[in-house]
Amino acid sequence: MTDFAKTKAAFTIPDGMIYLDGNSLGPLPRAARDAVTNTLQNEWGEMLITGWNRAGWMDQPKQVGDRIARIIGAPSGHVVVGDTLSIKVYQALASALALRPDRKVILSDSGNFPSDLYMAQGLIETLNAGRELKVVAPEEVADHIDETVAVTLITEVDYRTGRRHNMADLTQRAHAAGALTIWDLAHSAGAVDLDLAGCQADFAVGCTYKYLNGGPGSPAFIYVAPQYANNIRPALAGWLGHRAPFDFDLDYHAASGIDRLRVGTPPVIAMASLSAALDIWDNVDIAALRQRSIDLTDQFIQGIEATCPDLTLVSPRDPQHRGSQVSFAFEHGYSAMQACIDHGVVGDFRAPNIMRFGFTPLFIDAGDVEQAIERIAGVMQGRLWDNPKYQTRAAVT
Amino acid sequence: MTDFAKTKAAFTIPDGMIYLDGNSLGPLPRAARDAVTNTLQNEWGEMLITGWNRAGWMDQPKQVGDRIARIIGAPSGHVVVGDTLSIKVYQALASALALRPDRKVILSDSGNFPSDLYMAQGLIETLNAGRELKVVAPEEVADHIDETVAVTLITEVDYRTGRRHNMADLTQRAHAAGALTIWDLAHSAGAVDLDLAGCQADFAVGCTYKYLNGGPGSPAFIYVAPQYANNIRPALAGWLGHRAPFDFDLDYHAASGIDRLRVGTPPVIAMASLSAALDIWDNVDIAALRQRSIDLTDQFIQGIEATCPDLTLVSPRDPQHRGSQVSFAFEHGYSAMQACIDHGVVGDFRAPNIMRFGFTPLFIDAGDVEQAIERIAGVMQGRLWDNPKYQTRAAVT
Repeated sequence: MTDFAKTKAAFTIPDGMIYLDGNSLGPLPRAARDAVTNTLQNEWGEMLITGWNRAGWMDQPKQVGDRIARIIGAPSGHVVVGDTLSIKVYQALASALALRPDRKVILSDSGNFPSDLYMAQGLIETLNAGRELKVVAPEEVADHIDETVAVTLITEVDYRTGRRHNMADLTQRAHAAGALTIWDLAHSAGAVDLDLAGCQADFAVGCTYKYLNGGPGSPAFIYVAPQYANNIRPALAGWLGHRAPFDFDLDYHAASGIDRLRVGTPPVIAMASLSAALDIWDNVDIAALRQRSIDLTDQFIQGIEATCPDLTLVSPRDPQHRGSQVSFAFEHGYSAMQACIDHGVVGDFRAPNIMRFGFTPLFIDAGDVEQAIERIAGVMQGRLWDNPKYQTRAAVT
Repeated sequence: MTDFAKTKAAFTIPDGMIYLDGNSLGPLPRAARDAVTNTLQNEWGEMLITGWNRAGWMDQPKQVGDRIARIIGAPSGHVVVGDTLSIKVYQALASALALRPDRKVILSDSGNFPSDLYMAQGLIETLNAGRELKVVAPEEVADHIDETVAVTLITEVDYRTGRRHNMADLTQRAHAAGALTIWDLAHSAGAVDLDLAGCQADFAVGCTYKYLNGGPGSPAFIYVAPQYANNIRPALAGWLGHRAPFDFDLDYHAASGIDRLRVGTPPVIAMASLSAALDIWDNVDIAALRQRSIDLTDQFIQGIEATCPDLTLVSPRDPQHRGSQVSFAFEHGYSAMQACIDHGVVGDFRAPNIMRFGFTPLFIDAGDVEQAIERIAGVMQGRLWDNPKYQTRAAVT
């Protein structure tokens, strides 16, 4: 039985703040400072270069990868951590295209996070081999899976609406058509129940600074299904993906398995923070987490709809089709969100009109949701968005 | 006038250790712990998502890049920090090849760090467009620059021998043949005087965890000459290289200038450590640093040659052709280096027989060199390498 009071107590959240933006940047775990200080003082400071062996820095990308594997339903030994999510998208896409040399299409949808589409566009232009990115509406993805498709590049949970794709179904359809699948788990890992192995997903990528709380800019991860890992010729053929990096061969020979998706030197300090964040997951049951997420988001939808008639739900009402966030459309959404933040409910705004609230079950509870509804209702009923002080836009929201 | 006693005092080095491995991993700056703790507690912990604006996280890649620009002789506004060195090599290579579409050859040398060669091999295989990596002996690079060469990919200072290429001369020859240049500054930045602008280098890349002391796995940097920056179509077209990342367009439009070499979310915690390390450079005159490096390495060569006849210098004797490291060949080099480390002189070993000693002028002084010579002489004259305890090899040395 997962003790969510304990996981909630593991985070530092400013007094009075209800933080519904963990889907953008998770909050600071209390243990992170000591973990990072230990890496700085006792490892880097004392061991210096020998930290690569003695402190285990060199092995962290796979060890941390294994801890994430459990959270995303992947087999152990097939997830590795490093780089950024965009880089991991590139690695997965280049690998998938090389496995389907005679197919032209990368199929994605307009609900995908733009960086995934950009990385695909950059790769296509670089390859200059007649590949094509086809972007369709999210609900039309299934209809566009055919024999022209090399790979689908789909973010499971939409960053704006929280709409969740059916991974099992789309993966099955892709395989039936001979296509591969890449699943971007940015808004899924740590937020919903995932079963990459059961769904037979081919590739998955994700970031660790949202629901996994690794810290700003903490590294990404990549999963490659066991049957493909040894057939990939990495586009990003870095030395730590070499089968013997410290032989300093002049020629690249890929390491076996997921190790070949490593590229350069791992980000040791960031990894210390991420490891501390993952400690919180040790006793978390993912099914219990998912149920709690559904309960919290259902509670929020009901409460907001009952008190804020001006807000229109844009997230799916059926929790089976929803991740762990709830979004509402509102004409004055930007200003209304500024007012909410000023009243201690932190969500964020996504153009043109979406107010987005993320629910990280590790540190949000029913009491938080109740208070958040009350404060948001106060903002909406008082038309606080009309206040000019909430209307100036910052560069990043 | 640079105060090197002050820069030396800015580092934590274990008592009794003479650390001649700053060319592999620089030591912990005393200010790093507080800087990182501040980022964790006061920025991430208190500001949460608003740290991207309020703490300036989003702007760090270029701000930190500008601080590095001064150290490497690049114009301000043309260096950006992020990712790993291998990724930056890939970006530079893909960009250069696209600028020279009709030329086949990437010219490099066998003294290059293998990861650079691997990244070239991975890119060539991915492009599948008849490009070719030509690897020649370091002293033969100039002779192989001809009209077939699209770009030279050269590490300025050899990671094993410390041999330094003539950047101005090779760049001029490359340009005369219509080729572009990529300079890898891994063993140069913070170690030698650099003048990228004066040499008219086209691209440069480097890491920050060696002579710049950013910490294990701290991010890399890339420089693109001003005349090319706006002509590059990035292969790694990440959202933070987009001209308006927060518009969430579905189509990629590159930002202007060096910003388009940004890819994903910056590593904020690592950047805090790197920033603290760069503070030490604020009052360092690079010409004075270079002179100090020459003095220290000359002193070391003379002292070792006078006391250790079994060691054969493999670094250039002429300091104009040498970086800030000195390497000696010795048949029992691995065991001898273990014995040196055990006696408080930390260098490292590179197969097959190289004992490598790095001299970071910021924290090594003439007294350290004198003591190091004495201790190494003790190891060599006492044949301590014969002791079996120094003969077991660790995976990473």
